[in-house]
Amino acid sequence: MPRFKTILVTGGAGYIGSHCVVDLLNAGHDVIAIDNFANAVGDEEGSPALKRAEQITGKNIVFYEADLLNKPQINDIFDKHPIDCVIHFAALKAVGESMQQPLLYYQNNLLGMLNLLEIMRSHECYQMVFSSSCTVYGEPEYLPITETHPTGSITNVYGRTKYFIEEMLKDLSAADEKWNIISLRYFNPVGAHPSGLIGEDPTKEFTNLMPFMAQVALGKKPVLTVFGNDYNTPDGTGIRDYIHVMDLASGHVAALNFLGSNQVRLKVYNLGTGRGVSVKELVEVFERVTKTKIPLKYVDRRLGDITAMWADASLAKEELGWSTKLTIEEMCKYKTGCGIIKPFNITQ
Amino acid sequence: MPRFKTILVTGGAGYIGSHCVVDLLNAGHDVIAIDNFANAVGDEEGSPALKRAEQITGKNIVFYEADLLNKPQINDIFDKHPIDCVIHFAALKAVGESMQQPLLYYQNNLLGMLNLLEIMRSHECYQMVFSSSCTVYGEPEYLPITETHPTGSITNVYGRTKYFIEEMLKDLSAADEKWNIISLRYFNPVGAHPSGLIGEDPTKEFTNLMPFMAQVALGKKPVLTVFGNDYNTPDGTGIRDYIHVMDLASGHVAALNFLGSNQVRLKVYNLGTGRGVSVKELVEVFERVTKTKIPLKYVDRRLGDITAMWADASLAKEELGWSTKLTIEEMCKYKTGCGIIKPFNITQ
Repeated sequence: MPRFKTILVTGGAGYIGSHCVVDLLNAGHDVIAIDNFANAVGDEEGSPALKRAEQITGKNIVFYEADLLNKPQINDIFDKHPIDCVIHFAALKAVGESMQQPLLYYQNNLLGMLNLLEIMRSHECYQMVFSSSCTVYGEPEYLPITETHPTGSITNVYGRTKYFIEEMLKDLSAADEKWNIISLRYFNPVGAHPSGLIGEDPTKEFTNLMPFMAQVALGKKPVLTVFGNDYNTPDGTGIRDYIHVMDLASGHVAALNFLGSNQVRLKVYNLGTGRGVSVKELVEVFERVTKTKIPLKYVDRRLGDITAMWADASLAKEELGWSTKLTIEEMCKYKTGCGIIKPFNITQ
Repeated sequence: MPRFKTILVTGGAGYIGSHCVVDLLNAGHDVIAIDNFANAVGDEEGSPALKRAEQITGKNIVFYEADLLNKPQINDIFDKHPIDCVIHFAALKAVGESMQQPLLYYQNNLLGMLNLLEIMRSHECYQMVFSSSCTVYGEPEYLPITETHPTGSITNVYGRTKYFIEEMLKDLSAADEKWNIISLRYFNPVGAHPSGLIGEDPTKEFTNLMPFMAQVALGKKPVLTVFGNDYNTPDGTGIRDYIHVMDLASGHVAALNFLGSNQVRLKVYNLGTGRGVSVKELVEVFERVTKTKIPLKYVDRRLGDITAMWADASLAKEELGWSTKLTIEEMCKYKTGCGIIKPFNITQ
């Protein structure tokens, strides 16, 4: 029996949210999931991804189509359910779009968080795991990046919303000792649940490497656009710390367990593998694993993109007892779409 | 006839707002003022300070008791009036309180601004003068501080709300060329209108030097509390750039005129005198001007207080044609309360 029984998962129908819900259910938690379907596939009949999460686990999820900007709606959910802890994934997350529509991103991500914190406090729920991002570090001053690396020199609006929220959480937890929050700084989540039933299925135009590459493999796009091959890296392409989404999910369960037995006010952890992989290297592994040739097209760097970034993930290992288990090969093995498009498994 | 006719002044009943309204009326603008009376004295019958501003200028002010968190209310005001430009003073501003109640400050200051920007955009009003603060600079790396000094290492929540808003304005103006915004970084506003009819009249508990000192001079408080006399300054007390509120007001009219004839997207200016004055020096001038002895009590430094800070104010002089005219003696000459407490003038 977990210390926290009932978990509210915001953005629960999304890519990371839905995989995390699977792990939460398997760990014995009751899950209340909400989503406004801004990023995730779904409609008034619910979320296909969460229905598949139920299928995978054989357990039930309570789901609400709800928006954090609608305070009465969220308040009702807290009134109805004895929520012990919130895992807050819900956010707009497209870097390019965030530069075009900063007001939308600030409204949605900041106001959504402020509403949630206010409603949590009024229901005396002070436990939260927050989805932060390695973008809060900006251009790294050293590698691998530890949690003590300076934050704030952010290169895009999306990252700034994450940074602002982390600063708010610092202030909040400094002012009131009742708060008990872990902020998880994700590196680059890829991959999908081994069942092939859920995965990354962006509803908007995207340029994320892995779903883009999968679409090329499926013949839905002719060529993989690579942004920059003139970076100061061994092969000229950018280097990232790709982490399997199921490892990321288990990091949330570890954080939840830690909050259940420690009063931390606010702690921050990197979730990464500790290993940097270049775009070219990832493409090569993907080609080998899926036995598919991926034609590449090199274009100019994107404004604000970082040359190289990977995590020092030792703090999470030491304090949360968590580390990644899945390899780059396993990250490439499954590329799944769910919901309105049919699931596919390139290796089949 | 000014280029911008109708100006919406948020926080118009407050200390800086009410003095600015006087200057705006004198410069021939139509003023729509709103206030939620969070900081300023007032009730359903309106703002005593703004009634006195009308008395001083012989002109009328349209006033609404309104809250920026109430979007429909603000939207109605934009529907009713052809607002050409917004001067946005409204904010919670007590540094100490901001550390105790961070959520309140983030909600009020950030959300108020986001609502305002959204409503402005929907009414095709893209002109704004924003009240920022020298607190965005944090502990100075050099003095005097220029506008290019790094921002972001803020020592308190209030300052962080100003910094976050400046970052949002940067992103907003980068994304959409229609925005035309000046952010004014105030140093330390003191003093009052020479009529003695309006002035600084805090409604909450405060430790600001000048109103505190005036209350001691009036016998309302026994002794002036000075926070720290062991700073690394010539006399051990903190050094600030005090600026007369009427000079500050004229800075806003200068900014407005500049916006009226230049499309700047976003520009930032310091509003200060360029001269640093220690707490002890200010007390000595105050004693001499008011012929009153001010008993001092030294206590520990306040967390987050800066040792010394003064402006390089040359950019505003060069580009806005604005500079301060009033001396430290004139800042001490009038100390006025208005509204529910009777006006007084220590020199009479």
